[in-house]
Amino acid sequence: MNTLQFDIQISEVGPRDGLQSVVRTMPTEDKKRWIAALHAAGLQEIEVTSFVPPKLMPQLADAAEIVAHALTLPDLQVVALVPNLKGAEAAMKACVHKITIPCSASEAHSKANVRKTREQMVDEVRNVVALRNEIAPTMMIEAGISVAFGCTLQGIVPEDGVMSLMEALLEAGADETGMADTTGMANPAQVRRMYRRAIAAYGLDKVNSAHMHNTRGLGLANCLAAYEEGIRTFDSSLAGLGGCPHAPGASGNVVTEDLVFMFESMGLKTGIDLTKLIAAREPLKAGLPGEPLYGMTAEAGLPLGFKSL
Amino acid sequence: MNTLQFDIQISEVGPRDGLQSVVRTMPTEDKKRWIAALHAAGLQEIEVTSFVPPKLMPQLADAAEIVAHALTLPDLQVVALVPNLKGAEAAMKACVHKITIPCSASEAHSKANVRKTREQMVDEVRNVVALRNEIAPTMMIEAGISVAFGCTLQGIVPEDGVMSLMEALLEAGADETGMADTTGMANPAQVRRMYRRAIAAYGLDKVNSAHMHNTRGLGLANCLAAYEEGIRTFDSSLAGLGGCPHAPGASGNVVTEDLVFMFESMGLKTGIDLTKLIAAREPLKAGLPGEPLYGMTAEAGLPLGFKSL
Repeated sequence: MNTLQFDIQISEVGPRDGLQSVVRTMPTEDKKRWIAALHAAGLQEIEVTSFVPPKLMPQLADAAEIVAHALTLPDLQVVALVPNLKGAEAAMKACVHKITIPCSASEAHSKANVRKTREQMVDEVRNVVALRNEIAPTMMIEAGISVAFGCTLQGIVPEDGVMSLMEALLEAGADETGMADTTGMANPAQVRRMYRRAIAAYGLDKVNSAHMHNTRGLGLANCLAAYEEGIRTFDSSLAGLGGCPHAPGASGNVVTEDLVFMFESMGLKTGIDLTKLIAAREPLKAGLPGEPLYGMTAEAGLPLGFKSL
Repeated sequence: MNTLQFDIQISEVGPRDGLQSVVRTMPTEDKKRWIAALHAAGLQEIEVTSFVPPKLMPQLADAAEIVAHALTLPDLQVVALVPNLKGAEAAMKACVHKITIPCSASEAHSKANVRKTREQMVDEVRNVVALRNEIAPTMMIEAGISVAFGCTLQGIVPEDGVMSLMEALLEAGADETGMADTTGMANPAQVRRMYRRAIAAYGLDKVNSAHMHNTRGLGLANCLAAYEEGIRTFDSSLAGLGGCPHAPGASGNVVTEDLVFMFESMGLKTGIDLTKLIAAREPLKAGLPGEPLYGMTAEAGLPLGFKSL
């Protein structure tokens, strides 16, 4: 568990989740400018890239260079997504502070996303933990449970299966877990129920983040539900960039600007300057001209007299 | 208090709140088709128009004809907004089932919106109640408290003032009240706090609806917060049409489709068929070609296997 610096920690995933879902590749120098702008706005954790085969995801072929740049930004927790042991090894060699390993709660999505069964992914996490203990002992390992709230391929994902996968991943040595609404099918009642159950079983030390999508507009409501169950770390993406390439119709992460506005207006400190955060849309636009950007707060502007906490 | 037919009652305000905020006038026959489609989707209450001087709001000059049409739709609660006694009298003569009178919590907004002070509006409500008792005793009167959560003209709106206005309006004889986030400045913590306080003071019989906006993306989260405090009636607008003429650039109301999706996916019956509700965007489009429509659910489509309750 990380001790959070503020009431809420936003983990910006745009440079990974966003950029992997766009067909075009953002030039490396633009990525660096964008990540620097996000850091300058006060984000303390950024998932900056993914260590995946460049043949499969050429948009993120510059992973090592991006990590090296991000590591120069003061006090930034640099996170990378890795799908397997090979990616984890590359991430460790690049000296990231934390990796996230996506583990699908649905067998169909697991095979589509990482070409492994759920059981094989648990073994993979165990192998990653062993390697980390050997060569990068301070690096954190998060196992993120994908499609925890529903799957476009399989439909309903049984909650018991999500819980047993979580238990297996923690037993395999993951430092922490979170649940992801990869397909935008979660609702606030389900979010509360599942986080309550998971936290009761494994504790807030081990279950401490939520990755919600805004596919059907429920992103913030689902984050609020998770917050009320005790969750304090939330993934989101600037301008809502992103989705999942293997879950058709699953557009749209929670919009960081709107999420920060919600928490700050509730009196919860995020450490983020909203004016600078909205300004960080500019390097994103410059690096991906014409890409559709989401977010109501940027469109409406901040209320008169609003100040970041 | 109405006894609700389902777990949640959605009060569709698009034909009033939406159409008044658009400069163009939707042709009367198109309005009728749109309202009929909303009713066919299962909406049990629709705010169909506003009785205001046609010179001020030519878009709604056909108020009496629209009400007459809406009254032919089986089991529909037909609501009209009225700003004053004169409008209320016209609404009573048109035989609406319920009127909503907007009463601003901010003095600045009150003067801009209805050219009266808050005290004068309380007197107006008292006069409307007297007239109702005389000529339309079964008609319900709701006093809606505008800018209850913040005002673009005045800034912060003191909560004590909102509560004392609510008390005055109930003492003046309003059957029920609700609070409106006219300017999109509400946050879930504030919504919970204020509804909790109001319900504790005046009861769910008297405080029973929420009118949220989605200006900065918090619309559903704020509705969720109000729901958790006991509110079961929610105003919203198909495709998010609408807003407030005094909040320029801010897109408007909570999107009905997304709100219904949230509640239905939580297992709460609204009586609304989401497929038909999304289809009700077609007559809206036909009546206002090119008007920007909001809503993530309509864009993403319903999840595989989703069925309205």
